[in-house]
Amino acid sequence: MLRCGEIQWHEIPSPRHATRIEEVGATRLGVKFSDERNHTSASPLLPVTHSAEQTIVSDRDVKLLDTTLRDGEQAPGVSLSPDEKVEIARALERAGVAVIEAGSACTGAGERRAISRVTDLDLDACVTSFCRGMQTDVDLALDCDVDGVHVVVPASDRHIEDKVGTSHEDNLATTAELVEYATDHDLWVEVIGEDGSRADLDYLEELMGTALDAGADRICFADTVGHTGPERTADAVARLADLGPVSAHTHDDLGLGVTNALAAVAAGADMVHCTVNGLGERAGNVSLEEVAIALSHVYDVETLELEELYDLAQIVSRVTGVQLPPNKAVIGENAFTHESGIHTDGTLKDDKMYEPYAPETVGRERRLALGKHTGRAGVAATLEEHGVEADDDEIAEIAERVTELGDRGRRVTDADLLAVAEDVTGEDRDRVVDLLDLTATSGGAVPTASIRLEVDGEERVASGTGSGPVDAAVSAVREALGSRADAELESYHVDAVTGGTDAVVTVEVTMVRNDRSVTVARSEADITRASVTAMVDALDRLLAADRESLAPADD
Amino acid sequence: MLRCGEIQWHEIPSPRHATRIEEVGATRLGVKFSDERNHTSASPLLPVTHSAEQTIVSDRDVKLLDTTLRDGEQAPGVSLSPDEKVEIARALERAGVAVIEAGSACTGAGERRAISRVTDLDLDACVTSFCRGMQTDVDLALDCDVDGVHVVVPASDRHIEDKVGTSHEDNLATTAELVEYATDHDLWVEVIGEDGSRADLDYLEELMGTALDAGADRICFADTVGHTGPERTADAVARLADLGPVSAHTHDDLGLGVTNALAAVAAGADMVHCTVNGLGERAGNVSLEEVAIALSHVYDVETLELEELYDLAQIVSRVTGVQLPPNKAVIGENAFTHESGIHTDGTLKDDKMYEPYAPETVGRERRLALGKHTGRAGVAATLEEHGVEADDDEIAEIAERVTELGDRGRRVTDADLLAVAEDVTGEDRDRVVDLLDLTATSGGAVPTASIRLEVDGEERVASGTGSGPVDAAVSAVREALGSRADAELESYHVDAVTGGTDAVVTVEVTMVRNDRSVTVARSEADITRASVTAMVDALDRLLAADRESLAPADD
Repeated sequence: MLRCGEIQWHEIPSPRHATRIEEVGATRLGVKFSDERNHTSASPLLPVTHSAEQTIVSDRDVKLLDTTLRDGEQAPGVSLSPDEKVEIARALERAGVAVIEAGSACTGAGERRAISRVTDLDLDACVTSFCRGMQTDVDLALDCDVDGVHVVVPASDRHIEDKVGTSHEDNLATTAELVEYATDHDLWVEVIGEDGSRADLDYLEELMGTALDAGADRICFADTVGHTGPERTADAVARLADLGPVSAHTHDDLGLGVTNALAAVAAGADMVHCTVNGLGERAGNVSLEEVAIALSHVYDVETLELEELYDLAQIVSRVTGVQLPPNKAVIGENAFTHESGIHTDGTLKDDKMYEPYAPETVGRERRLALGKHTGRAGVAATLEEHGVEADDDEIAEIAERVTELGDRGRRVTDADLLAVAEDVTGEDRDRVVDLLDLTATSGGAVPTASIRLEVDGEERVASGTGSGPVDAAVSAVREALGSRADAELESYHVDAVTGGTDAVVTVEVTMVRNDRSVTVARSEADITRASVTAMVDALDRLLAADRESLAPADD
Repeated sequence: MLRCGEIQWHEIPSPRHATRIEEVGATRLGVKFSDERNHTSASPLLPVTHSAEQTIVSDRDVKLLDTTLRDGEQAPGVSLSPDEKVEIARALERAGVAVIEAGSACTGAGERRAISRVTDLDLDACVTSFCRGMQTDVDLALDCDVDGVHVVVPASDRHIEDKVGTSHEDNLATTAELVEYATDHDLWVEVIGEDGSRADLDYLEELMGTALDAGADRICFADTVGHTGPERTADAVARLADLGPVSAHTHDDLGLGVTNALAAVAAGADMVHCTVNGLGERAGNVSLEEVAIALSHVYDVETLELEELYDLAQIVSRVTGVQLPPNKAVIGENAFTHESGIHTDGTLKDDKMYEPYAPETVGRERRLALGKHTGRAGVAATLEEHGVEADDDEIAEIAERVTELGDRGRRVTDADLLAVAEDVTGEDRDRVVDLLDLTATSGGAVPTASIRLEVDGEERVASGTGSGPVDAAVSAVREALGSRADAELESYHVDAVTGGTDAVVTVEVTMVRNDRSVTVARSEADITRASVTAMVDALDRLLAADRESLAPADD
């Protein structure tokens, strides 16, 4: 494990650099450069442009700290086991995160076991723990063998007086003592001024200056409650950046998580605290993936291995149980999906027509979807994918009918398109598999199902058991199909159900056989029926494709 | 319906105002102020500070345009019926949106019926349609009796040459013709330069100037593909604001939707295009609720009736089927939920401790949740809510066991807390209702269930039918309980299921009886069993509370 103090900050070829080092040297050099500790070996300062024209230039060196395992886990309903923290930490390491805040050692024994498991991984990233402003918390962090700590001290009047119940003076003294204690124990130390965005800026400056003078490696401007905007963030960070290395910790309560993070970087912050998928207290922290792509795409400032981002997002979603919103930047299911006619047509002509960057940049693929806004180009491209031939007039009619289906609020899947296409082109076909009857019993100890299928004109009956009614029915279907059930269920997705127990449930299944994949969606109030009809329809399509490819050419 | 041109822009008491009007007068006054049409009666310009210190001052008059019904509906898988568009339009009106872009008239007959339904509502908001840069689209919009149109013309080389296949010169001529055609038909006209953020800024300026000279009421800087950052946005908008009233249309592909919208406003835009919940193509448009709360909270610029926002978000979520992400600003389930000990404790001491603004501001309520990070204060507050007495030592032990439950990754509900509390305080109780047996049959025409319950020590058997296995079982439970089944199922929620058909399903039910509510969650692979046990447990809690309140005081 690299020590936090050893994080490499590249030298900035800016003329401002020398000046700034010199300028700060006057107040900080004595403390910062004269001591023997390793964690001051890296350049403690970046050139800061906090003139009125603050912006981010491409030679800026910005590092990301990920706090998914600490602030992200504090999201209501989220809890991570030690194994899960290890899995996420490894993915963060693959993405190249500089600092992993692995948890809050004071939370309990389980949490400390989890943090220790992460420090044991010997990652390149520096691994830290959150500490409240008390010595016992630092001791508990030391027990986990972390490389560094984030010491959180109150910065606003409300937090100093009403929450912690101390005075501004005592708070300074406690902060200095704690920093000395932590650095004496060889810890890299970042001091976070809690609720800094609502603090008196003069006091915040004094508090953070005290922290640095006491030996802290870094200070952090925290918009703890997601209260502020970019102007105040820039003002505060610019003042703090005059004192030493500054991080920004932003929350998204006003939708300004990214705005403020960038304002902080423009004003001189060289580290941003983020969480994967923007998990965290309330509306969450700023999203790691958004900060990384925005810095890269707009400012040419590279912070992460971007192509790891989607994998990382999926791991965190699976482990935390928090679904990825379809319309979230970088990671949402629809982020690189085109449905509308204009956009699909444009994208088929030129990838870049309706995309700011290639999906592969963040480890993803482009997807065309069918629906109300589909045009002819999208229909033609999807039919070609399925090997279906149609002339221009037919494509126009198919597109119109797909639009009508979409108009009725339906999700239009491959299977729907193929059914419409058969109807329009007159290429009728007999079903290979058809569902005649289905009964599933659930609620008791052994969910059981029976099924009656017509397979190639022949009736087959079978039964099966499973962990629930759908699972039991699926095993009955497989039993009935025998050797022809060699298709794989690639994905099974049920939309969240909200409302009453009689709500309509939408089930979408994707099945794969011989490199061919078909997606079918069905909406019904009976989840068992919706799931099994979708699956049987998908199997029918796959087996029909197989039959056609085996048939003589003149058939 | 107010005509778009009649939207009231308040006069700005800024000294810059006069200067700017004068300055622009030189180039635009002849066109803009000399004609007789009504839609130039409002002040066509706002003072713009596009110096290096662009910011947003509180006397700025900014209006929001909502395009949920057009760009929002273009999100893959989303389709709105006329009734649904009407429902959303009414909610947008309650929220005070200035302009409602109701759809794209060229999409089809169904879409035109929907737009006509919205124009028929005679809303205060001005109702518009999207038009591609062709006269037929304007005609179709006129058929829907809209007040105005957004004429979209290509602005970047890629869109001019490769997509539309025209020349820069011809594009100017077509734009002028179209604007004249639309204004001749008494339409309010906004011209959107598609892909403006990737356009050559000199050409964009020429194109937008041409539009205004031809009589357009407004021009729009569109970051169509979510490609750009705040600096370029501010540069472009400042230049366009010199020509006339400017809107901003931003997308969130880089997570910069809000950042760019605010940069545009700071640079002189006085209208922002948004969608509810940030729906839209790919990663979506900028969120209406985020722009509104950020402008209000940070800059004191009021654009909407904020307390309507949550209701609006829920309507759009229900109608589109796109779930609200728990960690989304303003509208996410967790946006005002506190779980962690420090935050809960702080919030109980002072609402503002961990909240930037009161949840009531946006029509919501605060919520405390229990889980891994829960502390004693949160446990004590929740126990009190349920009328359970416990001393300090007991509360400490209960809190520790709640943390342990959370540690195992479990969602900790009221029922879990009460079970732990009974165990710790030794207040054992007999169950009022217990599930002995459950069988549900589904997949066929009539889902049916039978149930065996123990109610007050007496066994009861009943059956029921429903629209699916869970619904059938619920009716069986109600049948078995008879008159005691007077509790209402306030909410029934099943988390989305992804993976295989044997995935564990989490069901959360909230039941209410006599003003008392209890939430229970169960996770099992069998959705029927998970749903019914959760419901029976909730009923048991509610009936037990009833029994206690009826029992003699010394019992």
